[in-house]
Amino acid sequence: MKKSVFLLFLLFATSSALFSQQKPKYIFFMIGDGMGLNQINLTEVFLAAEADRNTVFPLVFSTFPHATFATSYSLSHGVTDSAAGGTALAVGKKTKNGVVAMDSSGTIAYKSIAYAAKEAGMKVGITTSVSIDHATPASFYAKQPNRGRYYEIGLDLIASNFDFFGGSGFLSPDKNSEKKSAPSLFPKFKEAGYKLAYGLDDFNTLKGKADKIILMGAKGSDSESLKYAIDQQPSDLTLEQITQSAIASLEGNEKGFFLMVEGGKIDWASHANDATTTIREMLDFNKAVKRVYEFYKQHPEETLIIVTADHETGGVAIGNGGSRLHTKLLANQRISQGELSKRIAVLRNAKQRASWDDVKTLLGENVGLFSKVKVSQEEEALLVDIYEKSFVKHEEETTKSLYATDDRLASEAIKILNKAGSISWASGNHSAAYIPVFAVGVGSERFSHKMENTDIPKKLAEITGFVIE
Amino acid sequence: MKKSVFLLFLLFATSSALFSQQKPKYIFFMIGDGMGLNQINLTEVFLAAEADRNTVFPLVFSTFPHATFATSYSLSHGVTDSAAGGTALAVGKKTKNGVVAMDSSGTIAYKSIAYAAKEAGMKVGITTSVSIDHATPASFYAKQPNRGRYYEIGLDLIASNFDFFGGSGFLSPDKNSEKKSAPSLFPKFKEAGYKLAYGLDDFNTLKGKADKIILMGAKGSDSESLKYAIDQQPSDLTLEQITQSAIASLEGNEKGFFLMVEGGKIDWASHANDATTTIREMLDFNKAVKRVYEFYKQHPEETLIIVTADHETGGVAIGNGGSRLHTKLLANQRISQGELSKRIAVLRNAKQRASWDDVKTLLGENVGLFSKVKVSQEEEALLVDIYEKSFVKHEEETTKSLYATDDRLASEAIKILNKAGSISWASGNHSAAYIPVFAVGVGSERFSHKMENTDIPKKLAEITGFVIE
Repeated sequence: MKKSVFLLFLLFATSSALFSQQKPKYIFFMIGDGMGLNQINLTEVFLAAEADRNTVFPLVFSTFPHATFATSYSLSHGVTDSAAGGTALAVGKKTKNGVVAMDSSGTIAYKSIAYAAKEAGMKVGITTSVSIDHATPASFYAKQPNRGRYYEIGLDLIASNFDFFGGSGFLSPDKNSEKKSAPSLFPKFKEAGYKLAYGLDDFNTLKGKADKIILMGAKGSDSESLKYAIDQQPSDLTLEQITQSAIASLEGNEKGFFLMVEGGKIDWASHANDATTTIREMLDFNKAVKRVYEFYKQHPEETLIIVTADHETGGVAIGNGGSRLHTKLLANQRISQGELSKRIAVLRNAKQRASWDDVKTLLGENVGLFSKVKVSQEEEALLVDIYEKSFVKHEEETTKSLYATDDRLASEAIKILNKAGSISWASGNHSAAYIPVFAVGVGSERFSHKMENTDIPKKLAEITGFVIE
Repeated sequence: MKKSVFLLFLLFATSSALFSQQKPKYIFFMIGDGMGLNQINLTEVFLAAEADRNTVFPLVFSTFPHATFATSYSLSHGVTDSAAGGTALAVGKKTKNGVVAMDSSGTIAYKSIAYAAKEAGMKVGITTSVSIDHATPASFYAKQPNRGRYYEIGLDLIASNFDFFGGSGFLSPDKNSEKKSAPSLFPKFKEAGYKLAYGLDDFNTLKGKADKIILMGAKGSDSESLKYAIDQQPSDLTLEQITQSAIASLEGNEKGFFLMVEGGKIDWASHANDATTTIREMLDFNKAVKRVYEFYKQHPEETLIIVTADHETGGVAIGNGGSRLHTKLLANQRISQGELSKRIAVLRNAKQRASWDDVKTLLGENVGLFSKVKVSQEEEALLVDIYEKSFVKHEEETTKSLYATDDRLASEAIKILNKAGSISWASGNHSAAYIPVFAVGVGSERFSHKMENTDIPKKLAEITGFVIE
């Protein structure tokens, strides 16, 4: 070896050794449930369209220095569900749809990256905009052969001993998976040392006084999920607030923390093929990322942020024929399809039967149909037909998607708006599309090539030295 | 500054300076026209499905060490066409749909990365599986206010003085854009010093004896495009052969070369919403990439390969409802929708009128319908209805997509197969989806984050020191 070559070799060997010793103290693992590349693109296109610009306005995470994509298929299906998808991201192994952090037979439990972080002395937080026992967050702390075992997932939460949980609440706190009454989870949480915070004010009272916290929606709010961003009132708990609360609870630990944040209802809105609500959920998730990114900017040498997804939902496409996009029309929708369904039901159940014109006014005010969005004769005829059936004859009033039973008039109205807004959906189920992966901070350069979804926690393990195998 | 910190600083400064001086001698710029992320994913899923595996079998380029994605919108439209898309990739500037390497008003000509390579002493090759004057290849050597000015694009080819051109042929060699007769381009090419090779044998005869070559399909073959891979016979010219011929012609130059390779008919097949033909085109493009990757492996320290796309076509989604994919069914299609159209037309024009059963047999043999792919009663009723109209009454025989006028029976049959094969299409036009970017070799680490399509040649200019502004 020539001397100069040897020096060069030494130089690289030293520098790469230095790099490899750098480990993040603060790890953020952020998951947009159902957030395919097209959901991101649509949001960027929409933001620009709202400002009458034919370009894209990037989200916080789409400007990260590393962006790539990964497969999403599960061990059993070409199209994953959130349990197998969450498991792949949490433990680095593919499993059967429906299974939470276990092998396909449901006999071998896997160790998640969150457990590995805890072992390494980090504090751990698991947060979501849906219920805390839902498949995606559960994949990080629970081990169950079936995602529907909500009560048992709640018991796994206690066993995890993780430091912070945040979400809307719990789906089955006093009935086990055999649908039998069981001792309520809430006193059990308390016995295990968790303080329960119902809403942000409650959390702020507890802050600094509790080692382990479970933050839920205010009493009386929906335990299934936070309200859709598009439907929220200022008093409603948001994902951004949960994220901020988690950081406040976890920081200060000498060995740092690991925080998982899920934007869970991008998926729900996409199941309903409701583009505007999907976009508003994306922006809501982006707000949580922004909060995390602000933390990163305070600790750039010690932080790693990964933003990814478990799968794409709906097979959404931007552009449905023409080359000119009309996504700005989507801004005319003021409430989610679910909320619109409720308002239509109120109208339908009014003492005096609502006329077609009353319905038309409602659709105009909330979806922009007729007023801002052209409705073809055919489309109006279809709406009138549904009105006749559901308002007059009380037949075929609703239509079901995975997470909602919506009014048929509402879903047809949203469909008309989406079509006018240049949006097409392939189905009400997930698709097999690649998932996006964005990363910034310590070790983020490893997220530079197309990978398997299971590689994401594996790479995180490489960066941190965590053992998940 | 502490001594150790200073040493570290020196170490990095030296190494990064060393890196920044490394420039690729051989540059491959490969474009899958219409190749969205979903087209790649679909091909990977299909390859695995053919082997009865629920996974993905990667393509050559999807294993490259750098993979990310970019925007595709043009200056005028949310959904780009191939002219504005090609221009963005070739010159690093967005322009109006329809314009080739000029500003939107068609008055200012832009300089492409290929011209910059030529200026730097490299040999330059421009190749495609469609006509050489088509918008994508043209963006690298021509400057025209309208992509339809095929004759003038041919004249620009001469002005470029580039070293190698390859493709099916020329669309309008003796009629100018005003549809008036004009002196044939072919003698002009010869006068300018180009040797014309018609087919691979012809090229092999010329090889080593010509400085500048234009390789086209054998005499008598279609000048519009090479045959779809799915329809090719062993004697037909392929994109892989064109790529190999280009490398053979360009290599040996002291200052290296720049080669653009376009897989042009992924787009055409996707315009026709023909999934199997799209997949076969993807695999054909992948073969060309494989050939280039083999060259890379011989010259890893001197080569850069970029694989990208101008836009996505069709808004294709993998998964149209169920979680189990049936993409293997797509393998039952043996010929393209276009070729199927021809065969149906032959049947329709037969002296003795073909029965519905004859048509059914044809669809079974070539698309797998009825024989391997279940056809619902409704679907069969639709096919019979079209048969009655087109075979008996000779009405509504055809349907048009951008690059094809197909038989209605053929397009309905392909639609049924696609649906059975878990594939959904948003439209027959392009979509606004992100485009994929894969890179390997010298400087490839710069393709690591989400970017604008115009950043791709800009980064190439940074890596090479080329001036395109």
